[in-house]
Amino acid sequence: MNRILLGHGSGGKLMHELIKKYIAPIFDLPSLMDSAIVSLNHSGKVAITTDSYTVSPIFFPGGDIGDLAINGTVNDLAVVGATPLYLTVGFILEEGFPMEHFERVLNSISKAAKKAHIKIVAGDTKVVDKGKGDGIFINTSGIGIVPEGIELSAQKIEVGDKVIISGSIGNHGIAVMSERNGFTFEPPVLSDTRALNGIIAEVLNNFAPYVKIMRDPTRGGVATTLKELALEGNKDILLYEKEIPLLDTVKGACELLGLDPLYVANEGIFIAIVKADMAENIVELMRNHPFGKESAIIGEVISEGNKVLLKTQIGGTRIVDMLPGEQLPRIC
Amino acid sequence: MNRILLGHGSGGKLMHELIKKYIAPIFDLPSLMDSAIVSLNHSGKVAITTDSYTVSPIFFPGGDIGDLAINGTVNDLAVVGATPLYLTVGFILEEGFPMEHFERVLNSISKAAKKAHIKIVAGDTKVVDKGKGDGIFINTSGIGIVPEGIELSAQKIEVGDKVIISGSIGNHGIAVMSERNGFTFEPPVLSDTRALNGIIAEVLNNFAPYVKIMRDPTRGGVATTLKELALEGNKDILLYEKEIPLLDTVKGACELLGLDPLYVANEGIFIAIVKADMAENIVELMRNHPFGKESAIIGEVISEGNKVLLKTQIGGTRIVDMLPGEQLPRIC
Repeated sequence: MNRILLGHGSGGKLMHELIKKYIAPIFDLPSLMDSAIVSLNHSGKVAITTDSYTVSPIFFPGGDIGDLAINGTVNDLAVVGATPLYLTVGFILEEGFPMEHFERVLNSISKAAKKAHIKIVAGDTKVVDKGKGDGIFINTSGIGIVPEGIELSAQKIEVGDKVIISGSIGNHGIAVMSERNGFTFEPPVLSDTRALNGIIAEVLNNFAPYVKIMRDPTRGGVATTLKELALEGNKDILLYEKEIPLLDTVKGACELLGLDPLYVANEGIFIAIVKADMAENIVELMRNHPFGKESAIIGEVISEGNKVLLKTQIGGTRIVDMLPGEQLPRIC
Repeated sequence: MNRILLGHGSGGKLMHELIKKYIAPIFDLPSLMDSAIVSLNHSGKVAITTDSYTVSPIFFPGGDIGDLAINGTVNDLAVVGATPLYLTVGFILEEGFPMEHFERVLNSISKAAKKAHIKIVAGDTKVVDKGKGDGIFINTSGIGIVPEGIELSAQKIEVGDKVIISGSIGNHGIAVMSERNGFTFEPPVLSDTRALNGIIAEVLNNFAPYVKIMRDPTRGGVATTLKELALEGNKDILLYEKEIPLLDTVKGACELLGLDPLYVANEGIFIAIVKADMAENIVELMRNHPFGKESAIIGEVISEGNKVLLKTQIGGTRIVDMLPGEQLPRIC
């Protein structure tokens, strides 16, 4: 059994063998049932999210589609203030996909789930005929509980609030791009894929009343995410280019490829808009976390409106809009 | 905007337009956020499930990939005794997919969600390059609450219990197969795709203590589902071929195509194993529901073991195993 066959998605014997031999041991699923039953010792609010992962190539410097699928969904829950608890994983495999690659992805999933302290409770496997897919697509959906008193909202953004970022931008997009096109950088650019629920919990445990909203700037990058927040909160946001953490290699790669790092996808950082007088304290706390060493205040909310403005290194100011079309397809 | 472009999955402007114009109005999503926050007025057990839908062709007699994706996930929750509440929907679209088809699928999703009384609370859209997908794949994940006192389990199956089915078998598989291969039947065979949470709730509201376990016999058909139950419950199950509801057209189609209807996928029926002395009453109740008119007792649990046996029309008995390999790929 070295490659995925159509029969692995049939619901019959081959599929049961695949689940029993490869999937169940790694996931620690209790049975082959389609639905899992879990206890939610919480009668309040629950966060629900879903994301499909179609990144190409599936293996890239710093990660693969497996840990990306776990971390991405964990992060979507974490940034709305939820404690991620349970994830589901659905595979769409292409006939002929090497079993060795599938095992590697399953291992990444398993490791990432452990690191993020979440449980994978239900799964699904479909197989499509050769030429009708691309090796492997993964959907993960997740639920988490929102602790009492946490209510993040763009409506809470006020003029004067500061914009914080937890790490350097563009790493994930450039890592995938370099692998896809066979570029190498020295030192290599690694994807920042990682679960942010730990660092976000620390921020909320200590500073919840001062945090207005959080977002993870994935597809569309920091620019698109902040434009969304500007629109939702009806505020103008001013960014200081020189404060935005950016690795030299990523900067160089972006110049070479004609990309604006503000639009390049990230998978391991978050943006928070916070009350100004606590911004420094929050950044200090974040810098003490291994996933927040480069945290910085990168901008502020300057007025009512709906624009994002960038004060450039050389002193000019330009308007930052959403990514208009396509920059880097299949980045997550 | 007549076809899906890669930019529709970029996270940027095109994606926002797609969501705003096509997806959000139909789904009634509150915002563009990745995660939804909902209230679960229930501190007990929660059922979680996920399923990806890759059916080919996406439109078939009696349904399409849209209602299938809603009904299938609703049914996975319903058969474990849960009341389905919230679903997420993730699309993987292929570049070039006609917008007109996407709209048709979105409409089916919307209608099916209303009929099943569930809410779609979060969504995701990815686009893959032409030739790397197949028009549209859909993942739906769902959560539901399990009412107090409901605890279905194969461990509860006892010798003497009866096997009930809620409708005729093989309709979905034959409907998809006929569309795929350009066959027509007279009268046409329609997929049975429909949400079973209504009829199942009626059964449980009236007879919960007598219901041991339920399953929806989708991929792998009735044979595979019952074999799974025999293995999980450590019991031998005897089926009476003549009691199994089967439309003449489906029977004829199976003979023509060399298929065993016991292995053909269903999307709108369920199997229940119930206490013998209530079996007739349960069937009577089910027959009064529009989705259970053909309900019947089709077998019984005859001994400790792990086999499924079929008493054939002509009086012989044969062993029924799981679907060994692949029969009808991409049926759901």
